[in-house]
Amino acid sequence: MDTTKKTIILFSGDFDKVMAALIIANGAAAMGDDVTIFCTFWGLNILRKTAKVESADKKTTLQSMFGRMMPKGTKKLGLSKMNFAGAGGPMMRKATKDAGGMSLEALFDSAREQGVRFVACTLSMDILGFTADELLDDVEYEGVAAYLATADEANINLFI
Amino acid sequence: MDTTKKTIILFSGDFDKVMAALIIANGAAAMGDDVTIFCTFWGLNILRKTAKVESADKKTTLQSMFGRMMPKGTKKLGLSKMNFAGAGGPMMRKATKDAGGMSLEALFDSAREQGVRFVACTLSMDILGFTADELLDDVEYEGVAAYLATADEANINLFI
Amino acid sequence: MDTTKKTIILFSGDFDKVMAALIIANGAAAMGDDVTIFCTFWGLNILRKTAKVESADKKTTLQSMFGRMMPKGTKKLGLSKMNFAGAGGPMMRKATKDAGGMSLEALFDSAREQGVRFVACTLSMDILGFTADELLDDVEYEGVAAYLATADEANINLFI
Repeated sequence: MDTTKKTIILFSGDFDKVMAALIIANGAAAMGDDVTIFCTFWGLNILRKTAKVESADKKTTLQSMFGRMMPKGTKKLGLSKMNFAGAGGPMMRKATKDAGGMSLEALFDSAREQGVRFVACTLSMDILGFTADELLDDVEYEGVAAYLATADEANINLFI
Repeated sequence: MDTTKKTIILFSGDFDKVMAALIIANGAAAMGDDVTIFCTFWGLNILRKTAKVESADKKTTLQSMFGRMMPKGTKKLGLSKMNFAGAGGPMMRKATKDAGGMSLEALFDSAREQGVRFVACTLSMDILGFTADELLDDVEYEGVAAYLATADEANINLFI
Repeated sequence: MDTTKKTIILFSGDFDKVMAALIIANGAAAMGDDVTIFCTFWGLNILRKTAKVESADKKTTLQSMFGRMMPKGTKKLGLSKMNFAGAGGPMMRKATKDAGGMSLEALFDSAREQGVRFVACTLSMDILGFTADELLDDVEYEGVAAYLATADEANINLFI
């Protein structure tokens, strides 16, 4: 098998799971592989601009609520376990820093610099009410068919 | 690689994860792929008949409790995040409907109409005390060896 | 495809998810496959010795806290759902025993006897402050590059 493609569906918006996804993606990219991270549902959080954006589209009440309650970007993510009412994320950050590991933001930047493709799931965007102007500029937009076409050619496909 | 098989182990019974699994399955089936969803543990919930069934087998106290507390079918599932004591599922349903997306039930029906195989993990059934007469009629029954045999021939294998 | 390799990233330390991972690993090993379980983050719990170990390395306050709060070994794991403040794990254990299923410890022992490789993620160890003397003696130690090299040659790669 001579493919060097990898795909990760990033469904989770938990700090620790996002970190795992980014570590795998960076590792694979460093080995020369083409990596696609397909962000869906809570995974879309990492693609959100932190600044407030006045979206052109009118949102429903529910979409406004999702927009307010879901974290913007990587900085506010909580842990999937031992989150201690929000303290878990900063604790894991500090432990990572103490261990000399890369921060979540550094991992994210490094992945993008290495050419990892970050794709926003358009169906999830429609449901949650996120528009392209609310997401980072270098994000791509695809549906499930495009994901499957990429995953069909990849030799590692993970759902995180 | 000329295989067109895909497998999903549906371990989760969360609304949002079930939705993700069904969207992927429908997408792959629409592209002509053979898709198997192997339902295990909480994923068995979606295969349960909503009507009360007097099971022939006597259940243990624990199995009766699992039976009472675990949701029957797709209608009562909660979200993996932001569930708000049960309000999250209906909210995500409404947001999906507002966005013109297919309901979980429509996705489930569509997957079955497109020939996606839904398999109940027999070991999980034994542990949780679910019998075949409590599950939907078109469900198949397999153990881990059968799953592995299918996954061995597939080019996308996800654990959700 | 003539490979018989399988990899599982065990990210979770939940009883039910660990059980699923071990059932798949045992099934694949019984069919003659080479299986690697790469334990990362909470998945490291199953590799921890239950006895107290005076680690040679000095731990940070956070690492000491992770060490105290994260379960040691398979015996204290909770469920990912319906955990009922810790009662869920023992309940699932009893239900498994009642159904004649193998205990988590038996599955773990069987997997190791069948040659399933258990690998500790070195980066997670550094962050959480786990040292090799705190983990089981037959554990191997690898980083993400080694995981990817194995997964590249496998035909089933799961993230659990």
